[in-house]
Amino acid sequence: MTHAELQNLIDRSLFADLGYIGGDGRPAIRRVFCVWHRGPGRHLISTNTSSRHVKLLSEHPEACLYFADSETFEGVCLTGRAVPTRDRALRELLWNNGDEKYYPLGVDDPDYCVIEFTADAAEYYRYDGKGALDAEALTRLSAGKAWENGYARHNGSNSSK
Amino acid sequence: MTHAELQNLIDRSLFADLGYIGGDGRPAIRRVFCVWHRGPGRHLISTNTSSRHVKLLSEHPEACLYFADSETFEGVCLTGRAVPTRDRALRELLWNNGDEKYYPLGVDDPDYCVIEFTADAAEYYRYDGKGALDAEALTRLSAGKAWENGYARHNGSNSSK
Repeated sequence: MTHAELQNLIDRSLFADLGYIGGDGRPAIRRVFCVWHRGPGRHLISTNTSSRHVKLLSEHPEACLYFADSETFEGVCLTGRAVPTRDRALRELLWNNGDEKYYPLGVDDPDYCVIEFTADAAEYYRYDGKGALDAEALTRLSAGKAWENGYARHNGSNSSK
Repeated sequence: MTHAELQNLIDRSLFADLGYIGGDGRPAIRRVFCVWHRGPGRHLISTNTSSRHVKLLSEHPEACLYFADSETFEGVCLTGRAVPTRDRALRELLWNNGDEKYYPLGVDDPDYCVIEFTADAAEYYRYDGKGALDAEALTRLSAGKAWENGYARHNGSNSSK
């Protein structure tokens, strides 16, 4: 699996699975909408500030983010830190028309926040083998890249979102 | 979401996401084929004995198993123990014609094993709300049930597999 094929798996995904440590200290998973990326190692997820996983990640940011395609039998597990942020530029970037139905007060709704995930390790597999990326490789693959909606790009949308 | 709707989500799934503690002590995820169930809280997964997650679970069985449907926006995260076993009856139960391509020595191939997942807690969500099940409720919902291939049942197959 080449780096381009790995990026393609990430870009064509609408969702990823966020793995974190639950309230009982045991592993927990939540499926999240995840289409904004900077290379294979950096990802943005918009969510509710009041969500339980946001509270838990604030206390324990060590997490993983898993992109997989069951039909092609390929997947990548990124390990790193998932940090909830209220950075306004990121909130604006991820805001979509219609999000008012989730966040009635708009971009500045206190319940609207973004989780910034930064990987320092990755393990990927496909039917034809597996591989790994270390922190240095992940940093290099994200270097010089701006945040991009990979799903929109993959699907040929002209919209920036 | 009723208990029947929760069971339906599990039964119609071919795959689940297994969350466990990786080699670095941080959360890790792997997508697994998971169609054998006893109610919502007990599940079987066949896998390679030599897999890294089998080794890690042998040392640290605390894990979660996540069934989700992105299209209907529903999911359930089961928390409990994932225990690799070489129990022959379970290996026979999960064996399918053609598995020789993965395990050339057949049911007794030393690389063929089964992970038995037993939940003691569950959290589920759907667009219309969320809920939880405790260990007592999970035990009650599995009581008197035999192992069943929920996917085959859901899809109306006459095969026991």
